[in-house]
Amino acid sequence: MFCLVNEVKEKNPLVHNITNVVVTNFTANGLLAIGASPVMAYAKEEVADMARIAGALVLNIGTLSHDEVETMIIAGKAANAQGVPVVLDPVGAGATSFRTDMSKKILKEVKVSVIRGNAAEVANIAGKKWEIRGVDTGSGNGSTVELAEKVAVQFGSTVVITGEIDVISNGKTTNTVANGHPLLTKVTGTGCLLSSVIGAFAAIEKNLVKAATSAVSVYGIAAEKAAETTAHKGPGSFQIDFLDQLSKIRKEDEAFAKIEIIKE
Amino acid sequence: MFCLVNEVKEKNPLVHNITNVVVTNFTANGLLAIGASPVMAYAKEEVADMARIAGALVLNIGTLSHDEVETMIIAGKAANAQGVPVVLDPVGAGATSFRTDMSKKILKEVKVSVIRGNAAEVANIAGKKWEIRGVDTGSGNGSTVELAEKVAVQFGSTVVITGEIDVISNGKTTNTVANGHPLLTKVTGTGCLLSSVIGAFAAIEKNLVKAATSAVSVYGIAAEKAAETTAHKGPGSFQIDFLDQLSKIRKEDEAFAKIEIIKE
Amino acid sequence: MFCLVNEVKEKNPLVHNITNVVVTNFTANGLLAIGASPVMAYAKEEVADMARIAGALVLNIGTLSHDEVETMIIAGKAANAQGVPVVLDPVGAGATSFRTDMSKKILKEVKVSVIRGNAAEVANIAGKKWEIRGVDTGSGNGSTVELAEKVAVQFGSTVVITGEIDVISNGKTTNTVANGHPLLTKVTGTGCLLSSVIGAFAAIEKNLVKAATSAVSVYGIAAEKAAETTAHKGPGSFQIDFLDQLSKIRKEDEAFAKIEIIKE
Repeated sequence: MFCLVNEVKEKNPLVHNITNVVVTNFTANGLLAIGASPVMAYAKEEVADMARIAGALVLNIGTLSHDEVETMIIAGKAANAQGVPVVLDPVGAGATSFRTDMSKKILKEVKVSVIRGNAAEVANIAGKKWEIRGVDTGSGNGSTVELAEKVAVQFGSTVVITGEIDVISNGKTTNTVANGHPLLTKVTGTGCLLSSVIGAFAAIEKNLVKAATSAVSVYGIAAEKAAETTAHKGPGSFQIDFLDQLSKIRKEDEAFAKIEIIKE
Repeated sequence: MFCLVNEVKEKNPLVHNITNVVVTNFTANGLLAIGASPVMAYAKEEVADMARIAGALVLNIGTLSHDEVETMIIAGKAANAQGVPVVLDPVGAGATSFRTDMSKKILKEVKVSVIRGNAAEVANIAGKKWEIRGVDTGSGNGSTVELAEKVAVQFGSTVVITGEIDVISNGKTTNTVANGHPLLTKVTGTGCLLSSVIGAFAAIEKNLVKAATSAVSVYGIAAEKAAETTAHKGPGSFQIDFLDQLSKIRKEDEAFAKIEIIKE
Repeated sequence: MFCLVNEVKEKNPLVHNITNVVVTNFTANGLLAIGASPVMAYAKEEVADMARIAGALVLNIGTLSHDEVETMIIAGKAANAQGVPVVLDPVGAGATSFRTDMSKKILKEVKVSVIRGNAAEVANIAGKKWEIRGVDTGSGNGSTVELAEKVAVQFGSTVVITGEIDVISNGKTTNTVANGHPLLTKVTGTGCLLSSVIGAFAAIEKNLVKAATSAVSVYGIAAEKAAETTAHKGPGSFQIDFLDQLSKIRKEDEAFAKIEIIKE
């Protein structure tokens, strides 16, 4: 499964991001580090052209506006027509009704291949209750495995719920990944970048559960290594070393993977 | 006074930022490092909702547009209605008349709790003459203490003027802080991030002079430590280590504080 | 020629950037590191005021919108009227027809002093064929020297084509620079920042071929030093050390310059 990371580094898939203003630089640098080729394009006049030539399209509502959502839908429809996988990151869905509504609108108008969020965000776009505050976190008592499977069926998408244990499911096949490190929560945009990295893997692997599981585990292992290398330093040093680790990670690192197959 | 920094790290106050596109990532990472929970939200449809659930609202005009100022006013009024403190950073006021006018408009429509700027910016929004070039600096011969006190009375706000010596005043009580390091002027957004950090402290401490004085001193000490750790390296290394130091700083570091009470 | 870098550090020219959302922070920090004073301003109401007081204006279409291009033209015309040099970075021209069209529109309405792009971008704005994918790269078999000279004559501008070997030409005088490092392609915005650094040099030196050649060589040498200092670490560490090197570089580093005069 980890040979995918080598393939990303060889093929440099073009990932078109329509994302929030907080994480654009980090997302672009993270995609370059993993081996993908990032492009950000937001103008209504060009997003369809760009989405069509991309290997994946990533839609992230972190600092959405009404206009930007319209742009996302134009890009999403162009991607759909061309068979380009679309990843949706519903940042902060549930924190305001605007975010929830706009996420639902995108899901109604665009066929989304992968939804990536925390449990609260994923629950909210599916109309289920889950606690959320701001855009950062949110935990609940429900089973995230059950949530991922239900939402996957509801939207016909592969769902990735990240947290201490990450869950990846298309409703039929479900995996969990136990890689990662708490320092990821101390750097802004690590969730957003993961969504874009999943896009890079989806660009080269049609089995989206496989693509996403591999991406999530690779990402978590890079974080574990960066946390070890920068022990006791802090989130600034961690962030920089994390980019270094993303650039170095290869299929041999599968030895560190903590992937569990829950349903096959 | 420094126990406030521990309190921020324990309570993780949600700070809603409407800020400029240059500093969003650094602001979010800096707030995470100090222990706060950052959120950026800019859409007219959601800013009131977000401001109401925040511990503080920070308005920064660094790359303002006419539309964005309208959004700031919507958010500011919602914050006012809910008793959420509002921090204004009038970046570059005086550099163009548009910035001066928009700052005045915000101050007219929104009850601003804390104004944070350099001497030129603060002078300009109060209709006083002070030299400024671009958005970065500006120094004058007037007393910044006198300026801070006058502007505080004029707007009924706590005023923070940063420079070699920082001044914090609500007109009645005035403190100065001599912490900080010149390398802060070599990294973009260090003033903007300070305004947001003041927001985090204001979210947990109603005495705004105390909150701001503590925030300014904590911030300056973190910079001193980063400058020491990265001596002779340069502004890139300093910026990263500064984030590390913000994450490590605790009330014990009050030993390094250079706070002077000018008027009580 | 390298005394220009010392002059930038002494004079701190104000560089007004209207640039893309991916690179704003890196551009501002890079300009500060080289010794310039960056300002970002985007509002129609203020760009003319800001451009007039700037030492150079840099227009970058990396995440352009129709509105932003209008703003660029307002700023460009104000700069032209004041004799302020204008640098254009046509990011991704050729990747979508919108980018090509908007680049041409700017070139028609504004007298551009320096055009900086890779071979594909420069070819596309001049109506010549060259392969491009996304915004990142593009190589061709034509001579980049010939391309630079032709496009320089076509627009009456100094043209800088960056690649393994960089070419600088105003049609009459042509230089090449062989400094630089492949790691620059692993960090987002290194081309964009170079355009802004060229702006800083153009602010203090009227001979634009000299200004741009010096800027390109200084930039490449800083990259070589950062690559050496951070050997085997990765693009995260390189990016940070590169900022440090930009802040340290001085005219003495001319010893490392690989400048060739092709036509004089």
